[in-house]
Amino acid sequence: MTTPESNPASNPTAAILIIGNEILSGRTKDANLPHIAEKLGGIGVRLREARVVPDVEEEIIAALDALRARYSYVFTTGGIGPTHDDITSACVAKAFGVALERNPEAVARLERHYGDPSKLNEARLRMANIPAGGELIDNPISAAPGFRIGNVFVMAGVPNIMQAMLDGVLPRLKGGPALHARTVACELAEGVIAADLGALQDRYPELEIGSYPYFRNGYFGVSLVLRGTDEPRLEAATEELAGIVRRLGGTPNVTVGAKG
Amino acid sequence: MTTPESNPASNPTAAILIIGNEILSGRTKDANLPHIAEKLGGIGVRLREARVVPDVEEEIIAALDALRARYSYVFTTGGIGPTHDDITSACVAKAFGVALERNPEAVARLERHYGDPSKLNEARLRMANIPAGGELIDNPISAAPGFRIGNVFVMAGVPNIMQAMLDGVLPRLKGGPALHARTVACELAEGVIAADLGALQDRYPELEIGSYPYFRNGYFGVSLVLRGTDEPRLEAATEELAGIVRRLGGTPNVTVGAKG
Repeated sequence: MTTPESNPASNPTAAILIIGNEILSGRTKDANLPHIAEKLGGIGVRLREARVVPDVEEEIIAALDALRARYSYVFTTGGIGPTHDDITSACVAKAFGVALERNPEAVARLERHYGDPSKLNEARLRMANIPAGGELIDNPISAAPGFRIGNVFVMAGVPNIMQAMLDGVLPRLKGGPALHARTVACELAEGVIAADLGALQDRYPELEIGSYPYFRNGYFGVSLVLRGTDEPRLEAATEELAGIVRRLGGTPNVTVGAKG
Repeated sequence: MTTPESNPASNPTAAILIIGNEILSGRTKDANLPHIAEKLGGIGVRLREARVVPDVEEEIIAALDALRARYSYVFTTGGIGPTHDDITSACVAKAFGVALERNPEAVARLERHYGDPSKLNEARLRMANIPAGGELIDNPISAAPGFRIGNVFVMAGVPNIMQAMLDGVLPRLKGGPALHARTVACELAEGVIAADLGALQDRYPELEIGSYPYFRNGYFGVSLVLRGTDEPRLEAATEELAGIVRRLGGTPNVTVGAKG
């Protein structure tokens, strides 16, 4: 049994490709996926997959090609700095079969940022190497730009820089119907409500209903999250679910959004 | 240019498959990847890839088949609870072409855990459905087991349960030479040290050298992480790097591990 198809044709789709050994070694906890997911959800773009790959050319290219063929948009994070392990831009150029060129506008931005020309060494100039045909993505924090080529958006891995880049990118994307969410939290065990919840999902196949158990303040409970583009149906299902919770002896705490 | 091959034949490899709409919507931040990565690193197993897929049967099966064909071990998290959106076990059975069976030992564990037979309803009994041939993985927190089949280890998504399951799994794995790490942190900009760092990487191709910029207490700095199985070579490279940092006017802060 699968959950209902959660990718209506009217909603563009997206994938994230997280590039970096530091994520796979456990040293660095990725903070970009949840941020990108929420921002995309806000404009009706559904994040459908994420992959984490090491700083290895073949791995980056293979993952990028798989994802860009399949989803409306692909967002990469990481690997666009000045050091030897920053190979994302070169890999993207290879994946698209275009040259990696020193971009004059990117050079100009780095020149303005570093001021003193002696600071703009060859390592830093590597950050101005952009695949031919790529459009720059602004970096208001540290100048070195990201870029878009085809349906791929190449961004920094450092969270505050990535977030600033994404803010510039979002208005360029074609979104879809907004995705709304409601959360019904209650101190019932998942297993107690599971049968009724499954039946509710069957009655509302156009919604995505998820069940997320938690343990807080000494109590087990569950956050039941309903998600979809049709707000009246979402409201109706939420009310039904609150009724189910009450019938089972729980106290439903209904909130807008999926944070509960 | 790629970083050196970071998967010596002597180190087994691993991938993580994170299953759940809640990760892709941004509602839930995954906390399992860094934990699994560190624990695997501790026994010399290299995490080489991670994927996040939604609660959709075809997606789970396709990702599982791709990963289990390629890596020594695959660890899945999420989707083994009692609700309709918990479809991982059924998907794993399909991927392996075996039946999903009610496992008597798993039923016995649930019976002991829930005590009162009326509490062990059909939804909860679903958690005892295990692919034929699967070996149970203990769940000391909430009884419902994970399982191993082939090179795939199926675990819960709730972090404390996943961690307890992993503790039981680790002694069963074949590890490899321990992976050691050193961190040289300094308040130099990445771009200042990039050229020397690339040359150092060229001199030590058997090590993996990463550069991770940070902004803390009003200063930019960088953590340079060296990683490998040959500790004398690791020490030698670390000393060279500390010397490079001093020559460039920085103060190297050398620590064991990759946390700096």
